[in-house]
Amino acid sequence: MIEFECILCGKKQPPDPKSQFCPDCGDPMLVSLPDLPRKMHTDEAHSLLRFLDFLPISEVDPSLCLGEGNSPLLRLSRLSQALALPRMWVKNEIFNPTASFKDRGTVVAVHMAKALGHNKIGTVSTGNMAISTAAYGARAGIKTYVFVKEDISQEKLISAGVHGAILIRAKGDYGRLSLLSFVLGGKYGIYIMNSTDPFRLEGYKVIAFEIYDQMPEIPDFVIAPVSSGGHLIGLIKAFQELKRHGLADRLPTFIGVQAQGCSPLAQAFATGRERFVRIDRPDSIAQSITNPDPPGGNVVLKLIRDLKGRIISADDKEILDAQRLLAEYEGIFCLPASATILAGVLKLQSQNYFRTRDRIVMVLTGSGVKNPKVVDVARLNLHEAALDDLEGLIQTLV
Amino acid sequence: MIEFECILCGKKQPPDPKSQFCPDCGDPMLVSLPDLPRKMHTDEAHSLLRFLDFLPISEVDPSLCLGEGNSPLLRLSRLSQALALPRMWVKNEIFNPTASFKDRGTVVAVHMAKALGHNKIGTVSTGNMAISTAAYGARAGIKTYVFVKEDISQEKLISAGVHGAILIRAKGDYGRLSLLSFVLGGKYGIYIMNSTDPFRLEGYKVIAFEIYDQMPEIPDFVIAPVSSGGHLIGLIKAFQELKRHGLADRLPTFIGVQAQGCSPLAQAFATGRERFVRIDRPDSIAQSITNPDPPGGNVVLKLIRDLKGRIISADDKEILDAQRLLAEYEGIFCLPASATILAGVLKLQSQNYFRTRDRIVMVLTGSGVKNPKVVDVARLNLHEAALDDLEGLIQTLV
Repeated sequence: MIEFECILCGKKQPPDPKSQFCPDCGDPMLVSLPDLPRKMHTDEAHSLLRFLDFLPISEVDPSLCLGEGNSPLLRLSRLSQALALPRMWVKNEIFNPTASFKDRGTVVAVHMAKALGHNKIGTVSTGNMAISTAAYGARAGIKTYVFVKEDISQEKLISAGVHGAILIRAKGDYGRLSLLSFVLGGKYGIYIMNSTDPFRLEGYKVIAFEIYDQMPEIPDFVIAPVSSGGHLIGLIKAFQELKRHGLADRLPTFIGVQAQGCSPLAQAFATGRERFVRIDRPDSIAQSITNPDPPGGNVVLKLIRDLKGRIISADDKEILDAQRLLAEYEGIFCLPASATILAGVLKLQSQNYFRTRDRIVMVLTGSGVKNPKVVDVARLNLHEAALDDLEGLIQTLV
Repeated sequence: MIEFECILCGKKQPPDPKSQFCPDCGDPMLVSLPDLPRKMHTDEAHSLLRFLDFLPISEVDPSLCLGEGNSPLLRLSRLSQALALPRMWVKNEIFNPTASFKDRGTVVAVHMAKALGHNKIGTVSTGNMAISTAAYGARAGIKTYVFVKEDISQEKLISAGVHGAILIRAKGDYGRLSLLSFVLGGKYGIYIMNSTDPFRLEGYKVIAFEIYDQMPEIPDFVIAPVSSGGHLIGLIKAFQELKRHGLADRLPTFIGVQAQGCSPLAQAFATGRERFVRIDRPDSIAQSITNPDPPGGNVVLKLIRDLKGRIISADDKEILDAQRLLAEYEGIFCLPASATILAGVLKLQSQNYFRTRDRIVMVLTGSGVKNPKVVDVARLNLHEAALDDLEGLIQTLV
């Protein structure tokens, strides 16, 4: 039987979407599968099936899937060479139905919604998770409620709303909205799958399982942006389970990167605190990772501390520089939030943190096409000419 | 040896990026591979390797790749059921490095650029092809020139320019710019890989090869949007080659769909003309397929006529309705240009064109996230409430 477990105090209880947080600690609980032998099904092409033994779902329903999974793992040779960095790979989660890693979690959560008999789902989100949940809800034919902030951009509102989801623009504190969503969801039968939903986190594990499968060896480092904490918890949990079941002989070192303007976990880590302090005024260009009060924050702090990882931060300039480097050297245009991975590597490299032979895998979470406006137009290599003057211009440019 | 061949007059000549058009007809030439036995390499995971025998490249260089290929083929069960349509699948080309099918062609063209010793590449594009060429050029470390129209949107300019490409905004007629690009490219050593570049088209074949590989049977219909014609030519050529080499026993029927406000090929097809007439004032919401003077147009007309396919058109309302249906019923948000595929199916269905048992594969070319503004905000299911009034609102919505 599946249970929910608080890894901070050890409390266990039956799974219940209405009470996903530990009644004692207040932190999110994780799925605990019974301790049976588990293996990888190497004959399966779909990664959900390949790693089904490690997931809470018992089957994969194609009518609930949108082609998620098997994202490419790209070697970044030019960038390694140009910047004298160790060997780097990007696990590119842009290759997902709604162009972000959120789809990995949503597909598992929607499978669980169906399995548990829910006919309404919902989420509180400022962007990517709203779009993902709305898309999978549409595919499944489940009534979907998306709670959004008052100041959500028109583009994001459309990208979620186009799927027919019921959009609820709530005026008031975002943190309170998040808590309220569980209360109202529980009362009115809406399964709220927010950023640290235990089943959503099980889906994020699959990103790590694929990294394991695609790399010849366990990577030395796995680096990901951190906001609510759910994504990084999922990545860590996956490698821990691979080790427990004898598929991995060691764990990577995990590095979480936050945006400096909203870095409650990096601050707590730097000062050795077990619990983070909420940020009052988040301010960063990396909008998708500016959760001032990350629900999974204390769990991330415990895991990273136990496993001797790091949580660091990068400022807006470092983030935008990293975004540009990935685009110019490797042809990968990602969101500022995603560019934190390279900004973090560059920061650690400047502290001589890595050995030359290290294998670094960075998880790239979302596509830059969703928010091109952050790029400084003045930096583009832009020229103009009338057709009759085109040859003259070309002569100066070759 | 590889040759270029004009399928309108049969003329053959050695491959030359500077003269990709038939000197007699003026239409684009296609790659003609020597008539040797060719087979599918079923043990390879990367589709470029799986179908390498059918491509002009002799190897796949990972440092020129961005993870393109193996896009999902999704069954559209809810939509088929809701609209009483035949069995439909979407080949979802959003799953590409820059979120459009253009990447399929670019990766092969860039491989050929390297193989032929070019150290500069370029393209003339209004959007997706510019982004794709700039991204692959960056990955390959090749100097990349992108010629864009005067009125290109800031978002598109950034999405291409962020990769460090040399952007040249040309003032004047777009058709003349396209011709001029070949002249200047030839003179200054820039390999121009435009929409009907013979090697780019070879890359589009891989979409069809994967459909062949992913379907249990040859589909009855393959449907794609048509603008320059390059994409559809590639899809048709692929199935013809599979048949010639004994891998397919028959061809699908091919349907090309244009935007009504720019439908030179649909008009020529409807009136039985062999050559299309240029459109003076293209006007459609489906911007990415509004080429008024499609270079591959006459080749498409010949192929479709020979194979008893159809070229039809859909108006803006039909296109936007189709876009909404795909998003609401299947969780797939695509560009208006891509939504023409479903608009076309609905139009043909209203003429009782299909049999109930037909298998229809639609090639979905690009992501709606690139242009959310086309969606009518008034149609969103949007509600507002202060936090204290949220419960009252939810009660009315469950």
